Amino acid sequence: MRCWYFNKPPKKDIEADTLVLREEPVPEIADGQFLLRSMYLSMDATNRLWLNDTDTDLYMEPVRPGQPMVGFMLGEVVKSKNAAFPVGALAAGLAPWAEYSVSDGAGFSVMPKIPGLKLDMAFGVLAIAGPTALVGLMEVGRPKKGATVVVTAASGAVGMLVGQIAKINGCKTIGIAGGAEKCGWLTSEFGYDHAIDYKKENVLERLKALAPEGVDVHFENVGGEMLDAGMAVMKNFGSVVICGLISTYNAQPGERVPGPYNFRNLIMKRLRVEGFVILDYLQHYAKYQQQLAGWMLEGKLNARLHVVPGIENSVDALKMLYSGANTGKVMVQIGKEPA
Amino acid sequence: MRCWYFNKPPKKDIEADTLVLREEPVPEIADGQFLLRSMYLSMDATNRLWLNDTDTDLYMEPVRPGQPMVGFMLGEVVKSKNAAFPVGALAAGLAPWAEYSVSDGAGFSVMPKIPGLKLDMAFGVLAIAGPTALVGLMEVGRPKKGATVVVTAASGAVGMLVGQIAKINGCKTIGIAGGAEKCGWLTSEFGYDHAIDYKKENVLERLKALAPEGVDVHFENVGGEMLDAGMAVMKNFGSVVICGLISTYNAQPGERVPGPYNFRNLIMKRLRVEGFVILDYLQHYAKYQQQLAGWMLEGKLNARLHVVPGIENSVDALKMLYSGANTGKVMVQIGKEPA
Repeated sequence: MRCWYFNKPPKKDIEADTLVLREEPVPEIADGQFLLRSMYLSMDATNRLWLNDTDTDLYMEPVRPGQPMVGFMLGEVVKSKNAAFPVGALAAGLAPWAEYSVSDGAGFSVMPKIPGLKLDMAFGVLAIAGPTALVGLMEVGRPKKGATVVVTAASGAVGMLVGQIAKINGCKTIGIAGGAEKCGWLTSEFGYDHAIDYKKENVLERLKALAPEGVDVHFENVGGEMLDAGMAVMKNFGSVVICGLISTYNAQPGERVPGPYNFRNLIMKRLRVEGFVILDYLQHYAKYQQQLAGWMLEGKLNARLHVVPGIENSVDALKMLYSGANTGKVMVQIGKEPA
Repeated sequence: MRCWYFNKPPKKDIEADTLVLREEPVPEIADGQFLLRSMYLSMDATNRLWLNDTDTDLYMEPVRPGQPMVGFMLGEVVKSKNAAFPVGALAAGLAPWAEYSVSDGAGFSVMPKIPGLKLDMAFGVLAIAGPTALVGLMEVGRPKKGATVVVTAASGAVGMLVGQIAKINGCKTIGIAGGAEKCGWLTSEFGYDHAIDYKKENVLERLKALAPEGVDVHFENVGGEMLDAGMAVMKNFGSVVICGLISTYNAQPGERVPGPYNFRNLIMKRLRVEGFVILDYLQHYAKYQQQLAGWMLEGKLNARLHVVPGIENSVDALKMLYSGANTGKVMVQIGKEPA
């Protein structure tokens, strides 16, 4: 089988020798363990942060050079000495970027088959992006009905869901994305009332025009200039949700990345700016997934997937998140779905 | 009488021609108005922000060139056609930097005489600094008993009170100030368990040593490097209270002042960073003042005042806030206390 290993930290962008693909035997299982056959590997912007080999400024233990790279994986249990994960079960959790892996079940959960939902769509939405969008918007941002909500990277895996969840909750929604095609999806598919194309338009001026009343909740996935523009148009007592800062993730450890240039607006506009990590909410996952699956089955929540076939293309798939080349939630299909 | 007028916005630091002192007649009062004889003028760091002649990035209407400079004033009503403010009453509110001024009472409140409290001390603590410290720490920061609290500009008007209020509420307190004398006050008078002298010590290293467990609530009055250091040592799920950012107040309008360089820690440490303005809490002032006066009378809350005599010295008094030359809460004594 094949497995990607972390070789050495990149200077900035992921490099050709950052990760290496190796062949090795399929591992054996011990008591309490199961063997997972990988199917779908979720690519998430935060993965880049795990590749710095530094303990500082990370919300979890990083991956170390020489260790297998990890990511959120959906697989099928094909051998088991763990009663909670029987052969044939679908299990999702943090796993090596490998065709097979062994786990004792820690951090894994059995993924129920939901009639009416395709497996790739269920995993793409329910595993990471959906709970992130739901928690970030509703539990951190807490918009009231009628609130104006702005989302950056609005066509990304999380952003495409935030717009729809905000719309379900009666908000006015403005999404920011790059390019006419993605902006078209925002308003035609993803629940956005308005789209701003940051590649072509002045984001700040467009925000002022589209939300002359000011913005109640800003949902940030990007950072940098996007956040500067967003913080400039907040209402007094508004909330800024820091879900991601992808524009800064390729910075080197120790590199000085300035925070928002209008940080002073925290006082001027009495803002609450709050960060979160979805891993802190795992104990409530069943509730979120039930809510999200319900909306999907009712046709209220839709997603675009960008499935890249083949474990050998995993690094290229990850890099798409930073270039914006992807056209939906990026997942690598490592193995086939069960028949 | 004499009155300070805003002449023209300074480039950076307040300049000799930023404010000008003029002589003019004592104003007459109309129905519903009263004439206030000024006694104490509070100097607050935020005053500098009112002198930029720009509507952007300010939490209230700025002062315009040609208008009288304003500040928080305690005075005595000496003429009145307003029953709520009878002759002889002490009234506090936003007023011109002048020996006399006229008001219809909007934004003013009658200040009760509190037996056992000297008038300058009552005004210095209860008018602005005390409610700011109390609201910022307890309603925005919300430390639990036993929490570790860090305060910057800890010997300043607000900071000296935050330490004591945190101590009253069972917190471990670390104050940051400049110079051995001020740091001495922190531990001997202002309720701080530990003091860090930013002029002599490495703030980040000292914070790590004094709070190896991490910090629950960071109370920020300064910004810049102080905030960078504070945000680096926060516990997960900690709170950062943005009360003031005095290190940035002399920036020009449009000048790009970077936010915290470790802004990413909002995600990594799941921080809540929240700004506030005490003017939003005026409707609850009586409650705060009662609480603060009670602690003062019980000997639990102390303050150092730095009273500068003479309206002609008002600008020099204000400038002390930015140089750190003051040795307590800065007030200008414009007129004598009532006999």
